[in-house]
Amino acid sequence: MSARTEMAETKVLAIASHVVYGYVGNTMVTFVMQSLGCEVSALHTVHFSSSFLIIYITNSPACSPGNHTGYRQIKGTKATASEILDLYAGLQQSHLTDFDVLLSGYAPSAEAVQAVGSIARDLKNQRQDLFWVMDPVMGDNGRLYVSEDVLPAYKALLPYADLILPNQFEAEVLSDVKITDLSSLITAISSLHSKYKIPHVVVTSVRFTLNQDGDQKETSTVPSLSIIGSTIRWADSTPRLFQITVPDIDAFFSGTGDMFAALMVARLREACTADGLCQSNDGNGPTWLCSDDVESLSTPLARAAEKVCASMSVILNRTKESMDLELKANPTLPESDIDAHLRKTKAAEVRVTRFQHELRDPVVVYKAEEVVAR
Amino acid sequence: MSARTEMAETKVLAIASHVVYGYVGNTMVTFVMQSLGCEVSALHTVHFSSSFLIIYITNSPACSPGNHTGYRQIKGTKATASEILDLYAGLQQSHLTDFDVLLSGYAPSAEAVQAVGSIARDLKNQRQDLFWVMDPVMGDNGRLYVSEDVLPAYKALLPYADLILPNQFEAEVLSDVKITDLSSLITAISSLHSKYKIPHVVVTSVRFTLNQDGDQKETSTVPSLSIIGSTIRWADSTPRLFQITVPDIDAFFSGTGDMFAALMVARLREACTADGLCQSNDGNGPTWLCSDDVESLSTPLARAAEKVCASMSVILNRTKESMDLELKANPTLPESDIDAHLRKTKAAEVRVTRFQHELRDPVVVYKAEEVVAR
Repeated sequence: MSARTEMAETKVLAIASHVVYGYVGNTMVTFVMQSLGCEVSALHTVHFSSSFLIIYITNSPACSPGNHTGYRQIKGTKATASEILDLYAGLQQSHLTDFDVLLSGYAPSAEAVQAVGSIARDLKNQRQDLFWVMDPVMGDNGRLYVSEDVLPAYKALLPYADLILPNQFEAEVLSDVKITDLSSLITAISSLHSKYKIPHVVVTSVRFTLNQDGDQKETSTVPSLSIIGSTIRWADSTPRLFQITVPDIDAFFSGTGDMFAALMVARLREACTADGLCQSNDGNGPTWLCSDDVESLSTPLARAAEKVCASMSVILNRTKESMDLELKANPTLPESDIDAHLRKTKAAEVRVTRFQHELRDPVVVYKAEEVVAR
Repeated sequence: MSARTEMAETKVLAIASHVVYGYVGNTMVTFVMQSLGCEVSALHTVHFSSSFLIIYITNSPACSPGNHTGYRQIKGTKATASEILDLYAGLQQSHLTDFDVLLSGYAPSAEAVQAVGSIARDLKNQRQDLFWVMDPVMGDNGRLYVSEDVLPAYKALLPYADLILPNQFEAEVLSDVKITDLSSLITAISSLHSKYKIPHVVVTSVRFTLNQDGDQKETSTVPSLSIIGSTIRWADSTPRLFQITVPDIDAFFSGTGDMFAALMVARLREACTADGLCQSNDGNGPTWLCSDDVESLSTPLARAAEKVCASMSVILNRTKESMDLELKANPTLPESDIDAHLRKTKAAEVRVTRFQHELRDPVVVYKAEEVVAR
């Protein structure tokens, strides 16, 4: 596909972290969305030397809880809430706030989350169809890696979000539903739809093996990883659920949540534009919404997610191949554990610039499947 | 050309400004180099809401001296020298300094310039063939837009630079040669080569019309713009000069100096890799240097500059077309001068994401021509 011909011009304000080295936060989302033809304005919530959060999507032994920094030794600065608001005020003064999408990621404090929320509300006041993709970065594997007051700050903003992308743990703490199996996951998503009227939800990195009975399967020989998504049915706030399952990769990547979010912005916009499912009633062209009679597997969200997973699967597998080659070419010398960890982390950087073709033209292998709530 | 197959893997540390909206500084160079397959680590010297410096490469009446801010109303923060050094220390601690290229642009103070210089020296201590592309951003059209102590800070660092990209005014203040015609420009470049042993110099945006006699021609009906470049002849530090002249565009773009620098990094690396002119004596493969018997028009610098000018010419012309359409579709309403200025500045943003094909596969129309020093 050619991003230029199929996707409407999409202007994105991305508010997230910046690292000098590596691809996480705005460093990841900016390039990925730009490659797909979006205009991206990146407002940085932190300016760090290298990656500092690891979004666990793998089954590597390295992913034990407590191992939360990619490079461990981090230098840099955090933006205060007032610095974030000041940068936005600069955009306002110069009439530079005509965005189609707000994509928000890591914010370093509850006050910073609130600042992002007030920017979102201002953008929505200017333009009703401003689409806010919120990645509520808070924690993983059962623990928070932000301060505790960040959670209520995100909860207060959920009614303004159009698409949220929590991982399993974040979905749990946002919905107050303990997620242990498919059934409880569906309850959590249903609750996020009905309580906060969030139009679209995707729970990333679901680790238990799913089946239609909502029970955990026996672990198969090939570990897999699922995402579960849903677009609300407007009449009764019930979910339209789908799942996509891909083989898991035995490696440890940073920035995959950011990559998912960035690809989703471009692919959802494309799906809403291309398939005619999202015509607005006022004749002003496509919106980000589809009517209730569209079945779950035909929703723009499900179609977009298939392309997102296709790009991610091939790029992460190719990154794993080059990582293995690099580590094999430079076998471990007598060195400290930290040095070995640093080398592995560096070799696992998802170098998206090498895989531009796979970003733009993925072949969909793993299709969305229906999830039936019991 | 496919960047992936023809260009050796190139890891770049880019130290320059970041703006949320628009393409200048690191916002421009990161995307341009990434599109061409480079790995880019971006360390930001400022974090501003929008563009704040205008590199004059046009003959638009809007380009009068004194009109130095793109959007005039700027918000944001500047990094101190110690913050810049601290971020670099973070990279050092995690063994993340294996760069091939340092590209430096705007630094907000003499101390910040010195910090960039100490990073350059440290990188060169680690690796002799680290290539420093210095864009000594200081001023234009006869005046400085940085404080006066920035000039001696840059001068002190010239012996460490491998390629400098001054505009005509910056070449003048760095070389202490008043540039009024081709002859004085050649003197300035010769002086930069011989005094500081800078291997490569390109003076961008040369505005007087050049001919082989070194005198100003009568102004032709089509205004033009030249770059004059040179690679040093090692034996006697004399220049190997070339010029490329393109038709000027009646518009006012920000970030064109950054675009030139970013394209030059990728194209010079490609030229050094591809043509076999830059084999090192120790058999370690291509370097950034070519031997003295290569004539000026065959130097990697001249070949690279042709491709750089080709991409820039087509992308700026296409930006001008879309700018004219945008301003025509939204004719000036009764509004303040500032609003009109802001709208024009916004319409003139060089949206490089739309022109990825032209970045990657330019057709060379304007060839390098020899410049003979009298």
